[in-house]
Parts: sequence; structure tokens; C-alpha cells
Amino acid sequence: MQRYFVDPDLFADDEITITGEDVHHIVNVMRAKEGEQILVSDGAGRTSRVRLTQLSSKEVKGQVVEALSEQTELPVRITIGQGLPKGEKMEWILQKGTELGAYSFFPFTSERTIVKLDAKKEAKKLERWRKIIKEAAEQSHRAVLPQLLAPVSFREMLKQPAQYTHCAIAYEKEDGATLHQLLETMKADDSLLILVGPEGGFSAEEVALAQAGGFLPVSLGPRILRTETASQYILSAASYQFEQKRSGCSDAAERKEE
Amino acid sequence: MQRYFVDPDLFADDEITITGEDVHHIVNVMRAKEGEQILVSDGAGRTSRVRLTQLSSKEVKGQVVEALSEQTELPVRITIGQGLPKGEKMEWILQKGTELGAYSFFPFTSERTIVKLDAKKEAKKLERWRKIIKEAAEQSHRAVLPQLLAPVSFREMLKQPAQYTHCAIAYEKEDGATLHQLLETMKADDSLLILVGPEGGFSAEEVALAQAGGFLPVSLGPRILRTETASQYILSAASYQFEQKRSGCSDAAERKEE
Repeated sequence: MQRYFVDPDLFADDEITITGEDVHHIVNVMRAKEGEQILVSDGAGRTSRVRLTQLSSKEVKGQVVEALSEQTELPVRITIGQGLPKGEKMEWILQKGTELGAYSFFPFTSERTIVKLDAKKEAKKLERWRKIIKEAAEQSHRAVLPQLLAPVSFREMLKQPAQYTHCAIAYEKEDGATLHQLLETMKADDSLLILVGPEGGFSAEEVALAQAGGFLPVSLGPRILRTETASQYILSAASYQFEQKRSGCSDAAERKEE
Repeated sequence: MQRYFVDPDLFADDEITITGEDVHHIVNVMRAKEGEQILVSDGAGRTSRVRLTQLSSKEVKGQVVEALSEQTELPVRITIGQGLPKGEKMEWILQKGTELGAYSFFPFTSERTIVKLDAKKEAKKLERWRKIIKEAAEQSHRAVLPQLLAPVSFREMLKQPAQYTHCAIAYEKEDGATLHQLLETMKADDSLLILVGPEGGFSAEEVALAQAGGFLPVSLGPRILRTETASQYILSAASYQFEQKRSGCSDAAERKEE
């Protein structure tokens, strides 16, 4: 069943009105008819099955048939702090990161950033990127629509730790903490901001600054990952840790205790 | 330091000769000079640091300075059985899968495969895909060069289980086994063939056939992953399980036992 994200203000318990670009998709692309059903999410965790009651080229109305309780969200909120990459890699990172459960994306520029975004270019990019996230969220059955924050400088990023329960920086030369050691300290509803460098990675100075600012340097394993692969590694590992292991090792440890 | 894969026959303990396309890369792209050092791997696990002694447009010779013992390979050998996807997605799957530690790639066609490869197209594609794997392996510091097997039909794929210690099929509707339950049963040197469907996934009949043939249906978590994301989820999870957890949950279980 096709899923659409609507503005939380338009979400209701009984009748839901859809406006904007989704109308075109429902009416002209899907060619939906009265009586057909769609899924409508408010992007903040609520999803309903909705029967279409009225379709026009301006708006679509529907009646809520059932409020769904979906469990498609990671129990921890992971924000990918992404050093802006070249070319179309950011699109890939947003699409795949959304599929893999990212809570939000926070792009930044740092010492080795190559790409330059002026204000006009940035606004256009952000619009395009938000569209990519929305489509990926609909396709992958997300109940939460990941947020894309406006890009900041690395210095600005260093002021963020107070907003999160956990902060980390991916660093290939780090042979101290592993991602596993970090994720093991997290519990449901915790939030993690994890920084991934641009193509050239981070300088040692940047890592030292981040560490002093409360970011834990973590290793993403023995192979060198490209900047557009790192976030997928992190999110897959988090899914494995928090969504796959329920009957896994923590249970095993408990069983040993009995 | 730049890394090159050479034919195992050209790999030696003392002097190494490089021929073919890498000569162009070393001489014209990297503009390397006598006395500079490179890394040379045989693609089967051996890597040496080599000092260049002789450079021409036809071949490059070097003296082995040191045989390295690298640990950049997953302790389990994972073969990604990939339903052939449309467009350039296969290139992405091979590049990312190589970075993330795949041992080999085994493309196949199935009920919902859209792409058609005739013999001529296939040979050209395979050549291009092998080049992508080689470059990704060099860039990500792999010691083993992942193999790309020739595409087969789904029926042919069902005959493969005898070649592997573990076989699985990724199935979104599966709420039985998790990937974690599968990986927990694997130990070092085990081999896994895991099938990922093309864009439309597998039919229920295909999953039943595979299951009857010894493939365990496994779930890749609560979100719907695109075909080009599934292998990255699997390989990241395997890295997390086998490369990150050394001081993790199995130790915790042991500690509880004491």
C-alpha cells in the first residue's frame, strides 16, 4: 500500500486532507480512485490506513479506517553528521540512510571539504535532498520522516553535544573504541550524533578538537570505508544491535546468570 | 600508500614484476619514481611493501621490503548472491560490497528479474564489474580480491548449497530467523551464500524452493531495504558481529559464567 507523509497539522483521527505534490502523485501517477486505501503518516511516528473519499487536482480527502501501530523505527535516534561530499554522493547517503533508519542528517563543512555551497545553491540542494528523504521514507515504510538540518561549520558542530545523549566521531586511525563499545552503552530513546568526514576524512587536529568537545572517536572496522559508505555501516550495525539481537547475546548473558 | 593487486603467479618473496593496466597507473597517473614504495597484494591474502627499482611503459619492477601481516579480511567468507538489478545499481553493490568485506559476488536471474543480458553484453559487463571490484579492493585495503562469478539462473543457484557451510535467502516477509540468529551460528572460516532478490524481491514460491534446498530465510530488520542496500546491511552486520564484538557480548557471557 502506498504511503504518504503529511504535515502533522493535516493529520487527524477521522478525516485527513492531503495537499501539495502528493495530490499529483495520488491522482495522476497512482491513478487512485474513491474507495481505494493508502497509508498516511505524520512523519512523527503516527500512521493510519485511510480510505480515499474525494479526489480532485487540488486536494485529496480520506477517512481514517485504522490507526496502525508500526515498529519500523530504530529504538535509538541516530543523527548522521555528514561531511559534505562531492557530486551526487549526498543523495545516496540520504536515500540509504533513510532506508536504514537514520533519525536525522546534519551536514557540515570541515578542513578537507571540497564542495562549495553558496546560499542559493544550498537552498536548492536542501529542497532536493528533503524530497529524496521523503521518497525513501515512504518507500521503506518509515513512520518517522528524517529531518535534514541546514549545513554548519565543523566549529559549529562542536557545540552540539549538549543536544544528544551520545556523540562520536568516526576515525579510521582510531584503535581504541569500537562502534560496538559505543552502541553497547546506549539504551532505548538515547540519541547519538556521529560525525563522518568528507572524502579526505578528518585531520588529527579536528579529531582532537572533537574529542575535547565530548565526541568519542570510534573505529568502523579494519577496512577503509568511503565517506558515502560509513553511515550505512553505522546504521546497519545499530539495527543489528537494537533490532536483531533481542533474542541474542543479552539474553544469552541473562541465561548464564540464571 | 597505493596498493596494487597482481596475478598470484607474479607475486614473489623478493622481486615483483607488474604488467598490464597497473603499469599505466603507476607510471603515468601516480608518476612514481625509482625508490618510491607501493603495496602489492596477490589477491589471496598476501601483501608486501615493495620499493620500485625499474619503471618503463611496459612493466614495473620492485624489490620486496617487507611482507605485511594485515587483518583486513572478515573471518567468515560471505558470498553475495545478487538478483541482477536494473541500471548501474550492480556497480554500486560491487563497489560497496568490496569495501565492506564481501568474499565473492554471485549474480543470478529470477522470476522478477527485469534486466536482460545477452552473451556479448554479459562479457562486457563482467569485465567492467571486475575492474570496479579491483579498484574498490585497492582503495579499501583489502588483502583478498573478491571474485565475481558468472551469472546463473535461480534454479542453478539452488544447486550451490554443497559449496558453502551456510546458505540463506533474504526475505522481507520472514518473521522467523533474524540475520543475528544466522550469524551467531557461524565461526571463523565458515562460508555463507546469501541470496538478495532483484527490485521486485522473491516470489513466495522461490523462497519455498530455496528453503527446501537448504537456504534459511532471514529477515534484514523491520524496514524495507532496496535491493542495492541489502548486501550492505548484511556485510556491515557481519563486520559488527565478527570484527567489532571481540570484547563484547561473548566476553560478557563468559564473565557471567565465572
